[in-house]
Amino acid sequence: MTDTHALMARRDVIGLRIGVLVSGNGTNLQAILDACARGDIAGGVVLVVSSSAKAFALERARRAGVPTVVLTPKEFSDRASYDARLIELLRTAQVELVCLAGFLRILTPQFVEQFAGRIMNIHPALLPAFGGPGMYGAHVHEAVLASGVKVSGCTVHFADETPDGGPIILQSPVRVEDDDTVESLAARVGVEEHRLYPAAIRLFAEERLQVIGRRVYVVDPAGPRAPAPAGRALLREGDNFESAGLTQAKKV
Amino acid sequence: MTDTHALMARRDVIGLRIGVLVSGNGTNLQAILDACARGDIAGGVVLVVSSSAKAFALERARRAGVPTVVLTPKEFSDRASYDARLIELLRTAQVELVCLAGFLRILTPQFVEQFAGRIMNIHPALLPAFGGPGMYGAHVHEAVLASGVKVSGCTVHFADETPDGGPIILQSPVRVEDDDTVESLAARVGVEEHRLYPAAIRLFAEERLQVIGRRVYVVDPAGPRAPAPAGRALLREGDNFESAGLTQAKKV
Repeated sequence: MTDTHALMARRDVIGLRIGVLVSGNGTNLQAILDACARGDIAGGVVLVVSSSAKAFALERARRAGVPTVVLTPKEFSDRASYDARLIELLRTAQVELVCLAGFLRILTPQFVEQFAGRIMNIHPALLPAFGGPGMYGAHVHEAVLASGVKVSGCTVHFADETPDGGPIILQSPVRVEDDDTVESLAARVGVEEHRLYPAAIRLFAEERLQVIGRRVYVVDPAGPRAPAPAGRALLREGDNFESAGLTQAKKV
Repeated sequence: MTDTHALMARRDVIGLRIGVLVSGNGTNLQAILDACARGDIAGGVVLVVSSSAKAFALERARRAGVPTVVLTPKEFSDRASYDARLIELLRTAQVELVCLAGFLRILTPQFVEQFAGRIMNIHPALLPAFGGPGMYGAHVHEAVLASGVKVSGCTVHFADETPDGGPIILQSPVRVEDDDTVESLAARVGVEEHRLYPAAIRLFAEERLQVIGRRVYVVDPAGPRAPAPAGRALLREGDNFESAGLTQAKKV
């Protein structure tokens, strides 16, 4: 049930045209929508595609006036045809950045090639730890707690055809407490996710992400020298570290 | 060249009797010696054993008045006989906690059994990431930088016969900067190591570490209820997170 007219019609978005792929509750979608509404990201969400008709993320999109499409796997004979339809939808909506936000499908190499360097994902742990096949949602936090680590966190990375495999854009640490449950840990990591994902998208919209091999560098804004690197300030001020400079100064 | 008399003579140490095994510069040994001298740890270092006669760690020990022994691998026919001698030395010095501090040898199961639950190690990354065979010293930071992660850190854990394998006691995150070199990252992680290792030993000395499976819990001091959990304060105040409570409050 695609309303191509609706997709084409979203011309009110100025700046980066973002497509978000979801399967569930959509809390990260909400964080992205809110950041766009606040003007923190120079762009907007032009399309939300869900792999499930029951995803609450669809309701979030509708409330924000964003066109939605449901693409259930059972409508398609295979992954290639599913992803071909997905590519068509995103191209029609002129999406420039694809954000995976709890999208429970592995992308085909064809999809990745179509949007090379333009697909982001968020993972609720510090990759490369606790990533890979089967590591999603509560499974991640269960594995974290079982392992006995004291630090978890979240990771925004460019996505490729390997699960949780692409270059890392931003990470933020979250302390694991002795009395943590899957729920309490997921909640605290979630707070960081909802800050980190918009921060990464903002840097992308400002063309400040430079990928060299597996490393992603945050560069100064292009063009005439900006008076204040606002993106860097956003990245720093709310994050889960003390400023490295302050830490050093206190320790000396 | 063992001076058994010197080992036995160190009866001035009150509290936990710590043995430290080193191979190199010994910056973590220095941090432990300093913490004991300040009274942060209810105990002291009674013996330092080095696998190399050239280790500067030996000089640090001598300056602190701690007996030293050099055990070079070439003096021994195999690992078992090396570790047997090590066990003998540590037993003679009545060591209650063995701290590995840059000790470049893998322990035999016999050694681990002799000091079960009483061997600690520090690793300059957030285990389970960047651990295992070959991952020591600069190699760790090289791998961290090559991988593109944005968060590294350090880990104090109970040691067993698997490299970097035992239950994790404490971890602290350290930000990886875009312009980091192996040297600059090692230096910042080092600052955290020198805080974290004494903090873990302090908790051990206070009998506040409870191991259940792979998880290590920090429990309240045993005996009559203490007025203020000083160990917990130590663990918290200098660490590399904002207080979780503050973070939440700011984000709401």
